[in-house]
Amino acid sequence: MDMKIINLDHLSANPLLPEVQDAMIEAIRENHGNPSSQHRMGERAFESLSNARKSVAKLVNSPTPEEIVFTAGGTESINHAVKGVALSQSKKGKHIVTSNIEHSAVLRSIKRLNMVGYKVTSVPVDESGRVNPEDIAKAITDETILVSVMHSNNEIGTIQPIEEIARITKEKKVIFHSDAVASVGVVPIDVQKLGVDLLSFASNNFYGPAGVGGLYIRKGTPVWPLLEGGVQESNKRAGTENLIGIIGTGVAADLAYRDMESRIAHVSKIKDRLLRELPNYIDDYFINGHPEHTLPNMVSVSIQYIEGESVVLMLDDEGIAVSTRSACAAGSLRASHVLLSVGRDYADAQGTMVLTFGTDNEEEDVIRFLSSLKDAVTTLRKISPLYNEVEK
Amino acid sequence: MDMKIINLDHLSANPLLPEVQDAMIEAIRENHGNPSSQHRMGERAFESLSNARKSVAKLVNSPTPEEIVFTAGGTESINHAVKGVALSQSKKGKHIVTSNIEHSAVLRSIKRLNMVGYKVTSVPVDESGRVNPEDIAKAITDETILVSVMHSNNEIGTIQPIEEIARITKEKKVIFHSDAVASVGVVPIDVQKLGVDLLSFASNNFYGPAGVGGLYIRKGTPVWPLLEGGVQESNKRAGTENLIGIIGTGVAADLAYRDMESRIAHVSKIKDRLLRELPNYIDDYFINGHPEHTLPNMVSVSIQYIEGESVVLMLDDEGIAVSTRSACAAGSLRASHVLLSVGRDYADAQGTMVLTFGTDNEEEDVIRFLSSLKDAVTTLRKISPLYNEVEK
Repeated sequence: MDMKIINLDHLSANPLLPEVQDAMIEAIRENHGNPSSQHRMGERAFESLSNARKSVAKLVNSPTPEEIVFTAGGTESINHAVKGVALSQSKKGKHIVTSNIEHSAVLRSIKRLNMVGYKVTSVPVDESGRVNPEDIAKAITDETILVSVMHSNNEIGTIQPIEEIARITKEKKVIFHSDAVASVGVVPIDVQKLGVDLLSFASNNFYGPAGVGGLYIRKGTPVWPLLEGGVQESNKRAGTENLIGIIGTGVAADLAYRDMESRIAHVSKIKDRLLRELPNYIDDYFINGHPEHTLPNMVSVSIQYIEGESVVLMLDDEGIAVSTRSACAAGSLRASHVLLSVGRDYADAQGTMVLTFGTDNEEEDVIRFLSSLKDAVTTLRKISPLYNEVEK
Repeated sequence: MDMKIINLDHLSANPLLPEVQDAMIEAIRENHGNPSSQHRMGERAFESLSNARKSVAKLVNSPTPEEIVFTAGGTESINHAVKGVALSQSKKGKHIVTSNIEHSAVLRSIKRLNMVGYKVTSVPVDESGRVNPEDIAKAITDETILVSVMHSNNEIGTIQPIEEIARITKEKKVIFHSDAVASVGVVPIDVQKLGVDLLSFASNNFYGPAGVGGLYIRKGTPVWPLLEGGVQESNKRAGTENLIGIIGTGVAADLAYRDMESRIAHVSKIKDRLLRELPNYIDDYFINGHPEHTLPNMVSVSIQYIEGESVVLMLDDEGIAVSTRSACAAGSLRASHVLLSVGRDYADAQGTMVLTFGTDNEEEDVIRFLSSLKDAVTTLRKISPLYNEVEK
């Protein structure tokens, strides 16, 4: 089929930018070597690794590049942060505070810790998906050793009051990790201004390669390594580096830093258009998330009386890629804990689509999407017993 | 400098084979997408992932591809296996049996477990670096939940009697992990014949990309995931896959399988030549490791009265890349625990070089290396007070 594919699922599959492709291909062709080698074949590799680290440090405004640890992606960063802090602090306490709408990497890491004796308090969110910092303050006890609250939600886009939470954790001397996988490279992130101790992110969310991520660890923050062995990454993460991916990540970080404003303007325009036009095409839907504290590249819409999975398949036939929710969970079919937490019921959660926009989208894509969406929704509602009953 | 670089440090920096480069570049250019996506952009990615898994499964003769989990490298595979089995079996027991010459990824993983209450018995090796299976049998108690013994040693090349050890662990119903990072792709590895429950390996040891590895987990083996979150890798290893690296790994595995015999013949010839010629160039040295049960691509030589680090630097000036020992530990300057375990003293350990050969080496490289080595050793011994004293 020669039809242009419209990608409205950038969260799961961002394309690599041409500059990122070129840098990775050059690295492949030139055989950079191993940064840990003792001879000159390793020198160039070491330099490439350092440069990429500087680029990433700049993107999140880390005061020194050495506070950035390269990982195999957002999931590793999160597991490293959550498990690593908790295990290192077991003598001080075994209580963790988190929110009800965290990514599965945070949830499952905490669940695992719970299995080995850690206690967890999970604070609720309001119907826009926001945590109340007061709830975090109240949840912290003398036993609390870690607070983990995401910067932005990967399903509904709501941005949390991280600075306010950091003020509380600093005052109470509790370590604060934020999963910023959906934010870094999409909106400005400044680890110093945010006041976090650890911050997780992933390269493919800013058009770098999948399978590469980073973890900002504020100097002096106690955290056990997840991967142990060699002395790579200042002894914080062992293993021969995925240098080709890291080089691509460095370039992607440079471009994200340089183009941040124009990218935000671009996706905001598309998002606005979609929200404005949506009522002209379908009815009986909710927009999930906060109207202001939200990612500029994401729309979560719960459409009543349909199955989101069916819409995904029907749009796929039209060459339009969308997601029912984060690709990480796509293989599982439970209702999203995030949607249930913001007040959607089970049926509405099933009818939810997450749209994420990118540099390759145009405003016209929205119209083609809406037109196909309208057809899909109309078709599906015709065969929905519930819809037909409600309509009567 | 236009001088041909002679790489005798393949263990730390294998070049990517042209076919591997081409496959990775194609993957970069074609934007494969995310294997977990729900739409057709993910289909091709899913297919590429499956194919790579089949190729790797074939290389280690895994009965089903699903028993292979892709990781971010040998270190992750080892941490996953050792920590994952130990933590999953804590109710059964907390005793681990290992050998004195394991890679730092095994040692440090076990040390970490020791910090949280696990007991360890580490069996010695003979002067050739071999474990006596009887020692493993004696070390196993009712509390033992894991035996971890490497297939081949990454510093001296000695290959362990894995099948014999597996017979013991099977009889005693203890889970058996083998770190085969230095072996897979270099010598034939058959997980069924070996009888291991888990086997770790890394792509860059067979001319695939660094930062990609695999873990064979025999069906039914209890092991907690190290990275948790999404449902990738049959729920055994969460995180968006490094698909570009995995595609390269699949091609590298296919080539390693196809060319195994000719590669072994090639490096064996070079190794033989080196060992035969060595006495014509230097004296006062030991060859470390076992004469027969050994990797065909590796020579470890301890040269008395010199510092290996100095030789590395002097050879580097001549365009010859060698290593004092595994690149993973290159940043640390302690004497190798492996060399001390096979009876070298501290001084001889300091004078040790590890040479690893590859497809790009020629027999003539050995002669150029030996000639430069002779010069370096002569120069260094001239300024060695110990050597001059001994010579008197």
